[in-house]
Amino acid sequence: MSDLNTIRDLLIRFRDERNWKQFHTLKNLIISLNLEAAELLELTQWKSDAELAALQSEEKFRQQLREECADVLHYLLLIAEDNGFDLIAAAQDKIRKNALRYPVEQSYGSAKKYTELKHQARDAQD
Amino acid sequence: MSDLNTIRDLLIRFRDERNWKQFHTLKNLIISLNLEAAELLELTQWKSDAELAALQSEEKFRQQLREECADVLHYLLLIAEDNGFDLIAAAQDKIRKNALRYPVEQSYGSAKKYTELKHQARDAQD
Amino acid sequence: MSDLNTIRDLLIRFRDERNWKQFHTLKNLIISLNLEAAELLELTQWKSDAELAALQSEEKFRQQLREECADVLHYLLLIAEDNGFDLIAAAQDKIRKNALRYPVEQSYGSAKKYTELKHQARDAQD
Amino acid sequence: MSDLNTIRDLLIRFRDERNWKQFHTLKNLIISLNLEAAELLELTQWKSDAELAALQSEEKFRQQLREECADVLHYLLLIAEDNGFDLIAAAQDKIRKNALRYPVEQSYGSAKKYTELKHQARDAQD
Repeated sequence: MSDLNTIRDLLIRFRDERNWKQFHTLKNLIISLNLEAAELLELTQWKSDAELAALQSEEKFRQQLREECADVLHYLLLIAEDNGFDLIAAAQDKIRKNALRYPVEQSYGSAKKYTELKHQARDAQD
Repeated sequence: MSDLNTIRDLLIRFRDERNWKQFHTLKNLIISLNLEAAELLELTQWKSDAELAALQSEEKFRQQLREECADVLHYLLLIAEDNGFDLIAAAQDKIRKNALRYPVEQSYGSAKKYTELKHQARDAQD
Repeated sequence: MSDLNTIRDLLIRFRDERNWKQFHTLKNLIISLNLEAAELLELTQWKSDAELAALQSEEKFRQQLREECADVLHYLLLIAEDNGFDLIAAAQDKIRKNALRYPVEQSYGSAKKYTELKHQARDAQD
Repeated sequence: MSDLNTIRDLLIRFRDERNWKQFHTLKNLIISLNLEAAELLELTQWKSDAELAALQSEEKFRQQLREECADVLHYLLLIAEDNGFDLIAAAQDKIRKNALRYPVEQSYGSAKKYTELKHQARDAQD
Protein backbone atom coordinates (compact mmCIF):
# COMPACT_ATOMS: atom_id res chain seq x y z
CA MET A 1 0.00 0.00 0.00
CA SER A 2 1.18 3.48 -0.83
CA ASP A 3 2.27 5.94 1.79
CA LEU A 4 3.92 9.36 1.71
CA ASN A 5 7.43 7.86 1.44
CA THR A 6 6.38 5.92 -1.64
CA ILE A 7 5.13 9.12 -3.26
CA ARG A 8 8.32 10.93 -2.35
CA ASP A 9 10.39 8.15 -3.91
CA LEU A 10 8.31 8.26 -7.10
CA LEU A 11 8.81 12.03 -7.29
CA ILE A 12 12.56 11.77 -6.82
CA ARG A 13 12.74 9.15 -9.55
CA PHE A 14 10.58 11.32 -11.82
CA ARG A 15 12.84 14.31 -11.17
CA ASP A 16 16.08 12.41 -11.67
CA GLU A 17 15.00 10.61 -14.84
CA ARG A 18 14.47 14.09 -16.35
CA ASN A 19 17.63 15.61 -14.87
CA TRP A 20 15.58 18.33 -13.22
CA LYS A 21 17.36 18.62 -9.88
CA GLN A 22 19.45 21.43 -11.40
CA PHE A 23 16.31 23.64 -11.39
CA HIS A 24 15.28 22.75 -7.85
CA THR A 25 16.84 25.52 -5.81
CA LEU A 26 14.89 26.26 -2.65
CA LYS A 27 13.62 29.53 -4.08
CA ASN A 28 12.42 27.86 -7.27
CA LEU A 29 10.64 25.04 -5.41
CA ILE A 30 8.88 27.53 -3.15
CA ILE A 31 7.88 29.72 -6.11
CA SER A 32 6.41 26.67 -7.83
CA LEU A 33 4.56 25.66 -4.69
CA ASN A 34 3.06 29.16 -4.57
CA LEU A 35 2.03 28.91 -8.22
CA GLU A 36 0.23 25.64 -7.54
CA ALA A 37 -1.45 27.20 -4.51
CA ALA A 38 -2.62 30.01 -6.81
CA GLU A 39 -4.10 27.44 -9.20
CA LEU A 40 -6.13 26.13 -6.28
CA LEU A 41 -7.20 29.69 -5.52
CA GLU A 42 -8.19 30.19 -9.14
CA LEU A 43 -10.81 27.45 -8.73
CA THR A 44 -12.63 29.81 -6.38
CA GLN A 45 -12.34 32.96 -8.53
CA TRP A 46 -15.59 34.97 -8.76
CA LYS A 47 -17.47 32.13 -7.07
CA SER A 48 -19.73 32.70 -4.06
CA ASP A 49 -19.66 30.22 -1.20
CA ALA A 50 -23.02 28.86 -2.41
CA GLU A 51 -21.70 28.31 -5.95
CA LEU A 52 -18.62 26.60 -4.59
CA ALA A 53 -20.69 24.32 -2.38
CA ALA A 54 -22.61 23.24 -5.51
CA LEU A 55 -19.40 22.74 -7.49
CA GLN A 56 -17.98 20.55 -4.73
CA SER A 57 -20.39 17.82 -5.81
CA GLU A 58 -19.56 18.10 -9.52
CA GLU A 59 -17.09 15.51 -10.75
CA LYS A 60 -15.10 17.82 -13.02
CA PHE A 61 -14.54 20.38 -10.26
CA ARG A 62 -13.66 17.67 -7.74
CA GLN A 63 -11.05 16.29 -10.09
CA GLN A 64 -9.48 19.75 -10.57
CA LEU A 65 -9.39 20.31 -6.83
CA ARG A 66 -7.80 16.90 -6.30
CA GLU A 67 -5.13 17.55 -8.94
CA GLU A 68 -4.18 20.99 -7.66
CA CYS A 69 -3.86 19.63 -4.13
CA ALA A 70 -1.64 16.86 -5.50
CA ASP A 71 0.62 19.45 -7.18
CA VAL A 72 1.05 21.34 -3.92
CA LEU A 73 1.87 18.13 -2.07
CA HIS A 74 4.50 17.22 -4.67
CA TYR A 75 6.40 20.44 -3.96
CA LEU A 76 6.10 19.98 -0.20
CA LEU A 77 7.66 16.54 -0.57
CA LEU A 78 10.47 17.82 -2.77
CA ILE A 79 11.24 20.64 -0.32
CA ALA A 80 11.17 18.23 2.63
CA GLU A 81 13.45 15.77 0.86
CA ASP A 82 15.96 18.47 -0.16
CA ASN A 83 16.09 19.75 3.39
CA GLY A 84 16.22 16.39 5.11
CA PHE A 85 13.09 16.54 7.21
CA ASP A 86 10.08 14.28 7.52
CA LEU A 87 6.84 15.95 6.54
CA ILE A 88 4.67 13.74 8.77
CA ALA A 89 6.78 14.49 11.85
CA ALA A 90 6.76 18.21 10.96
CA ALA A 91 2.97 18.21 10.67
CA GLN A 92 2.57 16.40 13.98
CA ASP A 93 4.95 18.76 15.81
CA LYS A 94 3.09 21.76 14.43
CA ILE A 95 -0.25 20.44 15.68
CA ARG A 96 1.29 20.24 19.16
CA LYS A 97 2.58 23.81 18.88
CA ASN A 98 -0.80 25.05 17.66
CA ALA A 99 -2.52 23.33 20.60
CA LEU A 100 -0.45 25.55 22.92
CA ARG A 101 -1.14 28.66 20.83
CA TYR A 102 -4.86 28.00 20.67
CA PRO A 103 -6.09 26.72 24.04
CA VAL A 104 -9.62 25.37 23.61
CA GLU A 105 -11.11 27.69 26.22
CA GLN A 106 -9.66 30.77 24.47
CA SER A 107 -10.34 29.85 20.89
CA TYR A 108 -13.61 27.92 20.97
CA GLY A 109 -15.78 29.20 18.12
CA SER A 110 -13.42 32.12 17.50
CA ALA A 111 -11.41 32.84 14.34
CA LYS A 112 -8.95 35.11 16.15
CA LYS A 113 -5.27 34.65 15.47
CA TYR A 114 -3.24 33.38 18.43
CA THR A 115 -1.44 36.71 18.64
CA GLU A 116 -4.80 38.29 19.54
CA LEU A 117 -5.75 35.75 22.23
CA LYS A 118 -5.37 36.63 25.90
CA HIS A 119 -3.65 33.37 26.79
CA GLN A 120 -4.98 33.56 30.31
CA ALA A 121 -4.02 29.94 30.73
CA ARG A 122 -0.35 30.85 30.41
CA ASP A 123 -0.16 34.50 31.38
CA ALA A 124 -2.63 34.97 34.20
CA GLN A 125 -3.94 33.37 37.38
CA ASP A 126 -7.60 33.96 38.08
CA MET B 1 3.96 4.87 13.79
CA SER B 2 2.35 7.99 12.40
CA ASP B 3 1.09 8.25 8.89
CA LEU B 4 -0.90 10.83 6.94
CA ASN B 5 -4.25 9.48 8.17
CA THR B 6 -3.13 9.88 11.77
CA ILE B 7 -2.24 13.52 11.09
CA ARG B 8 -5.58 14.08 9.38
CA ASP B 9 -7.40 12.63 12.38
CA LEU B 10 -5.45 14.83 14.78
CA LEU B 11 -6.33 17.89 12.67
CA ILE B 12 -10.03 17.04 12.59
CA ARG B 13 -10.04 16.58 16.34
CA PHE B 14 -8.17 19.88 16.78
CA ARG B 15 -10.70 21.63 14.55
CA ASP B 16 -13.75 20.11 16.18
CA GLU B 17 -12.60 20.71 19.76
CA ARG B 18 -12.48 24.42 18.86
CA ASN B 19 -15.72 24.43 16.87
CA TRP B 20 -13.88 25.79 13.84
CA LYS B 21 -15.58 23.83 11.06
CA GLN B 22 -17.99 26.76 10.65
CA PHE B 23 -15.08 28.84 9.22
CA HIS B 24 -13.84 26.10 6.90
CA THR B 25 -15.60 26.92 3.65
CA LEU B 26 -13.62 25.78 0.62
CA LYS B 27 -12.74 29.37 -0.24
CA ASN B 28 -11.49 30.07 3.27
CA LEU B 29 -9.38 26.91 3.42
CA ILE B 30 -7.80 27.68 0.06
CA ILE B 31 -7.12 31.30 1.08
CA SER B 32 -5.41 30.06 4.24
CA LEU B 33 -3.37 27.56 2.27
CA ASN B 34 -2.21 30.42 0.04
CA LEU B 35 -1.28 32.51 3.06
CA GLU B 36 0.85 29.68 4.43
CA ALA B 37 2.47 29.26 1.02
CA ALA B 38 3.27 32.99 1.13
CA GLU B 39 4.92 32.54 4.52
CA LEU B 40 7.17 29.93 2.92
CA LEU B 41 7.91 32.42 0.14
CA GLU B 42 8.72 35.10 2.69
CA LEU B 43 11.60 32.92 3.92
CA THR B 44 13.27 33.56 0.55
CA GLN B 45 12.58 37.32 0.40
CA TRP B 46 15.62 39.38 -0.73
CA LYS B 47 17.84 36.29 -0.44
CA SER B 48 20.11 35.16 -3.25
CA ASP B 49 20.39 31.46 -4.05
CA ALA B 50 23.81 31.44 -2.39
CA GLU B 51 22.44 33.00 0.81
CA LEU B 52 19.59 30.52 0.86
CA ALA B 53 21.95 27.60 0.39
CA ALA B 54 23.85 28.81 3.47
CA LEU B 55 20.65 29.28 5.48
CA GLN B 56 19.56 25.75 4.63
CA SER B 57 22.18 24.47 7.03
CA GLU B 58 21.23 26.83 9.86
CA GLU B 59 18.99 25.25 12.49
CA LYS B 60 16.70 28.27 12.98
CA PHE B 61 15.98 28.60 9.28
CA ARG B 62 15.45 24.85 8.90
CA GLN B 63 12.92 24.89 11.70
CA GLN B 64 11.00 27.78 10.06
CA LEU B 65 10.98 25.96 6.74
CA ARG B 66 9.73 22.78 8.41
CA GLU B 67 6.94 24.63 10.22
CA GLU B 68 5.69 26.50 7.18
CA CYS B 69 5.63 23.26 5.18
CA ALA B 70 3.65 21.67 8.01
CA ASP B 71 1.10 24.50 7.87
CA VAL B 72 0.58 24.02 4.13
CA LEU B 73 0.15 20.27 4.62
CA HIS B 74 -2.47 20.87 7.33
CA TYR B 75 -4.66 22.80 4.89
CA LEU B 76 -4.18 20.20 2.15
CA LEU B 77 -5.41 17.54 4.57
CA LEU B 78 -8.41 19.61 5.64
CA ILE B 79 -9.37 20.29 2.02
CA ALA B 80 -8.97 16.61 1.11
CA GLU B 81 -11.06 15.51 4.07
CA ASP B 82 -13.85 18.01 3.35
CA ASN B 83 -13.98 16.88 -0.25
CA GLY B 84 -13.70 13.18 0.38
CA PHE B 85 -10.53 12.33 -1.49
CA ASP B 86 -7.33 10.66 -0.47
CA LEU B 87 -4.29 12.89 -0.79
CA ILE B 88 -1.86 10.01 -1.32
CA ALA B 89 -3.91 8.55 -4.16
CA ALA B 90 -4.30 12.02 -5.67
CA ALA B 91 -0.53 12.57 -5.56
CA GLN B 92 0.15 9.18 -7.14
CA ASP B 93 -2.39 9.72 -9.94
CA LYS B 94 -0.90 13.11 -10.70
CA ILE B 95 2.60 11.65 -11.02
CA ARG B 96 1.22 9.24 -13.63
CA LYS B 97 -0.42 12.11 -15.50
CA ASN B 98 2.77 14.17 -15.38
CA ALA B 99 4.74 11.22 -16.75
CA LEU B 100 2.55 11.37 -19.87
CA ARG B 101 2.84 15.15 -20.08
CA TYR B 102 6.60 15.10 -19.69
CA PRO B 103 8.06 12.18 -21.65
CA VAL B 104 11.69 11.72 -20.61
CA GLU B 105 13.04 12.13 -24.15
CA GLN B 106 11.23 15.47 -24.55
CA SER B 107 11.89 16.97 -21.17
CA TYR B 108 15.32 15.71 -20.17
CA GLY B 109 17.27 18.65 -18.75
CA SER B 110 14.58 21.10 -19.92
CA ALA B 111 12.43 23.39 -17.77
CA LYS B 112 9.83 23.85 -20.51
CA LYS B 113 6.19 23.54 -19.55
CA TYR B 114 4.39 20.55 -21.06
CA THR B 115 2.27 22.87 -23.19
CA GLU B 116 5.48 23.92 -24.95
CA LEU B 117 6.77 20.39 -25.62
CA LYS B 118 6.40 18.83 -29.05
CA HIS B 119 5.04 15.55 -27.71
CA GLN B 120 6.43 13.68 -30.68
CA ALA B 121 5.88 10.48 -28.77
CA ARG B 122 2.13 11.00 -28.88
CA ASP B 123 1.57 13.20 -31.90
CA ALA B 124 3.99 11.96 -34.50
CA GLN B 125 5.54 8.79 -35.90
CA ASP B 126 9.10 9.20 -37.13
CA MET C 1 -0.13 67.98 -7.11
CA SER C 2 1.15 64.42 -6.90
CA ASP C 3 0.86 61.97 -9.73
CA LEU C 4 2.22 58.49 -10.37
CA ASN C 5 5.54 59.83 -11.70
CA THR C 6 6.06 61.77 -8.48
CA ILE C 7 5.51 58.60 -6.45
CA ARG C 8 7.88 56.68 -8.67
CA ASP C 9 10.56 59.33 -8.20
CA LEU C 10 10.09 59.27 -4.43
CA LEU C 11 10.46 55.50 -4.45
CA ILE C 12 13.62 55.59 -6.53
CA ARG C 13 15.11 58.18 -4.17
CA PHE C 14 14.08 56.07 -1.16
CA ARG C 15 15.69 53.00 -2.73
CA ASP C 16 18.89 54.74 -3.74
CA GLU C 17 19.41 56.54 -0.42
CA ARG C 18 19.45 53.09 1.18
CA ASN C 19 21.57 51.44 -1.52
CA TRP C 20 18.87 48.83 -2.08
CA LYS C 21 18.98 48.50 -5.85
CA GLN C 22 21.39 45.59 -5.39
CA PHE C 23 18.49 43.52 -3.98
CA HIS C 24 16.03 44.50 -6.71
CA THR C 25 16.40 41.68 -9.21
CA LEU C 26 13.22 41.06 -11.18
CA LYS C 27 12.59 37.82 -9.30
CA ASN C 28 12.99 39.52 -5.93
CA LEU C 29 10.70 42.43 -6.83
CA ILE C 30 8.02 40.05 -8.06
CA ILE C 31 8.33 37.87 -4.95
CA SER C 32 7.91 40.97 -2.77
CA LEU C 33 4.91 42.09 -4.78
CA ASN C 34 3.37 38.66 -4.19
CA LEU C 35 4.07 38.92 -0.46
CA GLU C 36 2.30 42.28 -0.30
CA ALA C 37 -0.62 40.82 -2.27
CA ALA C 38 -0.76 38.04 0.35
CA GLU C 39 -0.93 40.64 3.13
CA LEU C 40 -3.98 42.08 1.39
CA LEU C 41 -5.43 38.58 1.22
CA GLU C 42 -4.73 38.08 4.91
CA LEU C 43 -7.14 40.94 5.66
CA THR C 44 -9.93 38.68 4.38
CA GLN C 45 -8.84 35.49 6.22
CA TRP C 46 -11.74 33.63 7.87
CA LYS C 47 -14.06 36.57 7.16
CA SER C 48 -17.43 36.12 5.47
CA ASP C 49 -18.53 38.64 2.85
CA ALA C 50 -20.93 40.13 5.41
CA GLU C 51 -18.17 40.58 7.98
CA LEU C 52 -15.94 42.16 5.38
CA ALA C 53 -18.67 44.55 4.30
CA ALA C 54 -18.96 45.67 7.94
CA LEU C 55 -15.18 46.03 8.30
CA GLN C 56 -15.04 48.19 5.18
CA SER C 57 -16.61 51.00 7.18
CA GLU C 58 -14.23 50.65 10.14
CA GLU C 59 -11.39 53.12 10.13
CA LYS C 60 -8.70 50.70 11.32
CA PHE C 61 -9.52 48.15 8.63
CA ARG C 62 -9.73 50.84 5.95
CA GLN C 63 -6.29 52.08 6.89
CA GLN C 64 -4.83 48.56 6.66
CA LEU C 65 -6.42 48.04 3.27
CA ARG C 66 -5.07 51.36 2.05
CA GLU C 67 -1.55 50.58 3.24
CA GLU C 68 -1.41 47.12 1.72
CA CYS C 69 -2.62 48.49 -1.61
CA ALA C 70 0.09 51.15 -1.38
CA ASP C 71 2.73 48.45 -0.86
CA VAL C 72 1.60 46.56 -3.95
CA LEU C 73 1.66 49.77 -6.00
CA HIS C 74 5.21 50.52 -4.84
CA TYR C 75 6.45 47.24 -6.29
CA LEU C 76 4.54 47.75 -9.53
CA LEU C 77 6.26 51.11 -9.93
CA LEU C 78 9.69 49.68 -9.19
CA ILE C 79 9.18 46.87 -11.70
CA ALA C 80 7.91 49.31 -14.34
CA GLU C 81 10.84 51.64 -13.78
CA ASP C 82 13.42 48.83 -13.95
CA ASN C 83 11.91 47.59 -17.18
CA GLY C 84 11.40 50.96 -18.81
CA PHE C 85 7.67 50.96 -19.31
CA ASP C 86 4.94 53.37 -18.29
CA LEU C 87 2.39 51.83 -15.94
CA ILE C 88 -0.43 54.15 -17.01
CA ALA C 89 0.06 53.35 -20.69
CA ALA C 90 0.27 49.63 -19.86
CA ALA C 91 -2.99 49.80 -17.91
CA GLN C 92 -4.74 51.65 -20.72
CA ASP C 93 -3.52 49.22 -23.40
CA LYS C 94 -4.70 46.27 -21.31
CA ILE C 95 -8.18 47.76 -20.97
CA ARG C 96 -8.35 47.93 -24.77
CA LYS C 97 -7.22 44.31 -25.04
CA ASN C 98 -9.76 43.20 -22.45
CA ALA C 99 -12.53 45.04 -24.33
CA LEU C 100 -11.80 42.74 -27.30
CA ARG C 101 -11.62 39.66 -25.10
CA TYR C 102 -14.85 40.48 -23.33
CA PRO C 103 -17.40 41.85 -25.82
CA VAL C 104 -20.31 43.34 -23.88
CA GLU C 105 -22.92 41.12 -25.54
CA GLN C 106 -20.97 37.96 -24.60
CA SER C 107 -19.95 38.86 -21.09
CA TYR C 108 -22.82 40.93 -19.72
CA GLY C 109 -23.56 39.71 -16.21
CA SER C 110 -21.28 36.69 -16.67
CA ALA C 111 -18.12 35.84 -14.72
CA LYS C 112 -16.84 33.49 -17.41
CA LYS C 113 -13.20 33.78 -18.45
CA TYR C 114 -12.63 35.01 -22.01
CA THR C 115 -11.25 31.62 -22.96
CA GLU C 116 -14.74 30.20 -22.29
CA LEU C 117 -16.66 32.81 -24.30
CA LYS C 118 -17.95 32.01 -27.77
CA HIS C 119 -16.67 35.24 -29.31
CA GLN C 120 -19.43 35.26 -31.87
CA ALA C 121 -18.67 38.89 -32.52
CA ARG C 122 -15.25 38.00 -33.88
CA ASP C 123 -15.64 34.45 -35.08
CA ALA C 124 -19.07 34.31 -36.63
CA GLN C 125 -21.49 36.31 -38.77
CA ASP C 126 -25.16 35.72 -38.00
CA MET D 1 -2.97 63.13 -21.23
CA SER D 2 -3.92 60.04 -19.28
CA ASP D 3 -3.47 59.79 -15.57
CA LEU D 4 -4.50 57.28 -12.93
CA ASN D 5 -7.98 58.80 -12.56
CA THR D 6 -8.59 58.38 -16.27
CA ILE D 7 -7.66 54.70 -16.02
CA ARG D 8 -9.90 54.26 -13.01
CA ASP D 9 -12.81 55.82 -14.89
CA LEU D 10 -12.21 53.56 -17.89
CA LEU D 11 -12.21 50.54 -15.59
CA ILE D 12 -15.43 51.55 -13.88
CA ARG D 13 -17.10 52.05 -17.25
CA PHE D 14 -15.77 48.67 -18.45
CA ARG D 15 -17.11 46.99 -15.30
CA ASP D 16 -20.51 48.68 -15.44
CA GLU D 17 -21.09 48.08 -19.15
CA ARG D 18 -20.73 44.36 -18.36
CA ASN D 19 -22.76 44.45 -15.14
CA TRP D 20 -19.84 42.98 -13.23
CA LYS D 21 -20.03 44.97 -10.00
CA GLN D 22 -22.12 42.15 -8.54
CA PHE D 23 -18.98 39.93 -8.54
CA HIS D 24 -16.71 42.59 -7.02
CA THR D 25 -16.89 41.81 -3.31
CA LEU D 26 -13.73 42.82 -1.50
CA LYS D 27 -12.72 39.18 -1.07
CA ASN D 28 -13.18 38.47 -4.77
CA LEU D 29 -11.22 41.54 -5.86
CA ILE D 30 -8.35 40.66 -3.56
CA ILE D 31 -8.34 37.03 -4.72
CA SER D 32 -8.17 38.22 -8.32
CA LEU D 33 -5.35 40.62 -7.49
CA ASN D 34 -3.46 37.68 -5.97
CA LEU D 35 -4.05 35.58 -9.07
CA GLU D 36 -2.62 38.33 -11.27
CA ALA D 37 0.36 38.64 -8.92
CA ALA D 38 0.86 34.88 -9.36
CA GLU D 39 0.86 35.30 -13.13
CA LEU D 40 3.69 37.79 -12.71
CA LEU D 41 5.48 35.25 -10.52
CA GLU D 42 4.97 32.56 -13.14
CA LEU D 43 7.09 34.62 -15.55
CA THR D 44 10.05 33.87 -13.27
CA GLN D 45 9.34 30.14 -12.79
CA TRP D 46 12.48 27.95 -13.10
CA LYS D 47 14.46 30.94 -14.37
CA SER D 48 17.79 31.93 -12.87
CA ASP D 49 18.55 35.61 -12.30
CA ALA D 50 20.88 35.51 -15.32
CA GLU D 51 18.18 34.03 -17.56
CA LEU D 52 15.71 36.64 -16.37
CA ALA D 53 18.15 39.45 -17.02
CA ALA D 54 18.44 38.19 -20.62
CA LEU D 55 14.67 37.88 -20.99
CA GLN D 56 14.22 41.44 -19.78
CA SER D 57 15.55 42.64 -23.11
CA GLU D 58 13.33 40.36 -25.19
CA GLU D 59 10.24 42.05 -26.57
CA LYS D 60 7.85 39.15 -25.98
CA PHE D 61 8.82 38.82 -22.33
CA ARG D 62 8.68 42.58 -21.80
CA GLN D 63 5.17 42.66 -23.18
CA GLN D 64 4.05 39.85 -20.84
CA LEU D 65 5.58 41.64 -17.88
CA ARG D 66 3.86 44.88 -18.84
CA GLU D 67 0.48 43.18 -19.21
CA GLU D 68 0.63 41.33 -15.91
CA CYS D 69 1.60 44.55 -14.11
CA ALA D 70 -1.37 46.26 -15.79
CA ASP D 71 -3.70 43.53 -14.51
CA VAL D 72 -2.49 44.00 -10.95
CA LEU D 73 -2.94 47.77 -11.22
CA HIS D 74 -6.50 47.32 -12.48
CA TYR D 75 -7.46 45.45 -9.32
CA LEU D 76 -5.72 47.99 -7.08
CA LEU D 77 -7.77 50.74 -8.73
CA LEU D 78 -11.01 48.82 -8.35
CA ILE D 79 -10.31 48.14 -4.68
CA ALA D 80 -9.38 51.79 -4.06
CA GLU D 81 -12.51 53.01 -5.82
CA ASP D 82 -14.79 50.63 -3.91
CA ASN D 83 -13.28 51.72 -0.64
CA GLY D 84 -13.17 55.42 -1.35
CA PHE D 85 -9.47 56.11 -1.09
CA ASP D 86 -6.96 57.67 -3.43
CA LEU D 87 -4.21 55.29 -4.48
CA ILE D 88 -1.65 58.05 -5.11
CA ALA D 89 -2.19 59.57 -1.65
CA ALA D 90 -2.01 56.09 -0.10
CA ALA D 91 1.29 55.39 -1.86
CA GLN D 92 2.75 58.71 -0.78
CA ASP D 93 1.69 58.26 2.86
CA LYS D 94 3.23 54.79 2.92
CA ILE D 95 6.56 56.10 1.64
CA ARG D 96 6.58 58.53 4.58
CA LYS D 97 5.80 55.71 7.01
CA ASN D 98 8.53 53.52 5.51
CA ALA D 99 11.02 56.38 5.82
CA LEU D 100 10.43 56.28 9.60
CA ARG D 101 10.63 52.50 9.68
CA TYR D 102 13.82 52.38 7.67
CA PRO D 103 16.12 55.22 8.76
CA VAL D 104 18.94 55.53 6.22
CA GLU D 105 21.68 55.02 8.81
CA GLN D 106 20.08 51.74 9.99
CA SER D 107 19.12 50.26 6.69
CA TYR D 108 21.83 51.38 4.26
CA GLY D 109 22.80 48.38 2.15
CA SER D 110 20.82 46.03 4.41
CA ALA D 111 17.83 43.87 3.45
CA LYS D 112 16.69 43.49 7.07
CA LYS D 113 13.02 43.99 7.82
CA TYR D 114 12.20 47.03 9.95
CA THR D 115 11.13 44.77 12.81
CA GLU D 116 14.76 43.57 13.00
CA LEU D 117 16.34 47.04 12.98
CA LYS D 118 17.56 48.63 16.20
CA HIS D 119 15.83 51.94 15.54
CA GLN D 120 18.43 53.88 17.48
CA ALA D 121 17.09 57.04 15.90
CA ARG D 122 13.78 56.63 17.68
CA ASP D 123 14.59 54.52 20.71
CA ALA D 124 17.97 55.73 21.86
CA GLN D 125 19.98 58.88 22.43
CA ASP D 126 23.66 58.62 21.61
